[in-house]
Amino acid sequence: METNKKITLVKIGGNVIDDTEALINVLIAFSKIEGPKILVHGGGKEASRIAEKLGLVPQMIDGRRITDAPMLDVAIMTYAGLLNKKIVAQLNASGVTAIGFSGADGNTILSQKRKNAEINFGFVGDVVSINSELIYKLIEQEIVPVFCAITHDGKGQLLNTNADTITSELGIALSKHYDVKVIYCFEKQGVLINTEDENSVISQINQSKYRDLLAIGAIHSGMIPKLDNCFYALSKGVQQIIIGHHSIIGQSDSIYTSIQL
Amino acid sequence: METNKKITLVKIGGNVIDDTEALINVLIAFSKIEGPKILVHGGGKEASRIAEKLGLVPQMIDGRRITDAPMLDVAIMTYAGLLNKKIVAQLNASGVTAIGFSGADGNTILSQKRKNAEINFGFVGDVVSINSELIYKLIEQEIVPVFCAITHDGKGQLLNTNADTITSELGIALSKHYDVKVIYCFEKQGVLINTEDENSVISQINQSKYRDLLAIGAIHSGMIPKLDNCFYALSKGVQQIIIGHHSIIGQSDSIYTSIQL
Repeated sequence: METNKKITLVKIGGNVIDDTEALINVLIAFSKIEGPKILVHGGGKEASRIAEKLGLVPQMIDGRRITDAPMLDVAIMTYAGLLNKKIVAQLNASGVTAIGFSGADGNTILSQKRKNAEINFGFVGDVVSINSELIYKLIEQEIVPVFCAITHDGKGQLLNTNADTITSELGIALSKHYDVKVIYCFEKQGVLINTEDENSVISQINQSKYRDLLAIGAIHSGMIPKLDNCFYALSKGVQQIIIGHHSIIGQSDSIYTSIQL
Repeated sequence: METNKKITLVKIGGNVIDDTEALINVLIAFSKIEGPKILVHGGGKEASRIAEKLGLVPQMIDGRRITDAPMLDVAIMTYAGLLNKKIVAQLNASGVTAIGFSGADGNTILSQKRKNAEINFGFVGDVVSINSELIYKLIEQEIVPVFCAITHDGKGQLLNTNADTITSELGIALSKHYDVKVIYCFEKQGVLINTEDENSVISQINQSKYRDLLAIGAIHSGMIPKLDNCFYALSKGVQQIIIGHHSIIGQSDSIYTSIQL
């Protein structure tokens, strides 16, 4: 650890992105976060909408998008184009010097096409390495990187990559330079002990509690990879992780779930 | 002039972008240009193709695209998304640390919505200012900016902007820091005295010769704004401008048209 400077990484997901008013409020709140920061955004329903209009049929296996070549083009257009640039324009309007990034830009996120014996995910990339030196240099010049969920293999091929994973890998890589705080925003107020009850937010989860909650089936489906991803990031150098509703950005007295080792 | 360092700006247009093999060759040639450099790209037919697939009807007045809100989205998706990221990925594969930019990224190109009493161009922006300090800083870190033809108004609105104009405005702004050479690539070998004869390339055009060629009708239609744009850039600080076929990039013995004041 060279310094104790802090950086905040915020990941926003589809539910915010699909709601223009919520998105603007989130971006204004994000713009007010002090110190170095990075925004990572998912894609929302826009890619599926555009794919449908183009006559493509989104393919899913186990809730995961299969990315064939036309669908990759739609992902690039939507995530790196439409969404990333609208977010960047809005942040610059809020006084933040934001620059949009795919992993290809500045060779910031190198990935490799997923190898899986059972499912051919198509043009999906798993993160191999982060060019943290370049990202650090830019951040130290008060630039705020805005990452979309597109990476590249270093040989000219763009790949679709999970935005949660991008966030945690960025956090891990930047923990060389900063104390890293990650805020994962989603549609709930946090991890719920009862998914039917919005008031059942678990305020803190550590690995032992996570195992217990898994055992009783209180945590399941999409929350499992999210939490695995969090524990992985914490074990690799990220200092602090919060999961909560997007309205917590910039709020100190909110309800959310804090993830600890 | 702080220094006599050189920078090369290359603008590639639709004909190269529509031809995958030509594009890769151009990007490899561009990657070999020594010293600071910037690539600016137009959109090609991709935006029209995608617009058509989405059921939009491209509107043109006097050969100029009218950009309504759905068409702006297509331009952002195509120029800043699909094309920009594919170009950036390819350049990084060729060893160049390329970062893709719209004018919103880093607030690099501020524009204002075009005011025209006769034609409502829609979401078309005319360049107001270039954030040359940021661009200069990035270039001095051996980053190669790749600009698409999207700018912003600084208030969150993205705008469609002519790629030739973006190139000349970038050249003018960077002439504070560098001796600027601009190469405009297009489908012909240069400015032709007879548009039917590919061998009629005019090797040099200055303002006086331009006036003569205009008077006899040898230069007309789309070439007029291109050349006006060149003379404007030269009068504002750009040192050298070349118009030619994209195959001239990196070639010293090619045929092309050199524009001089």
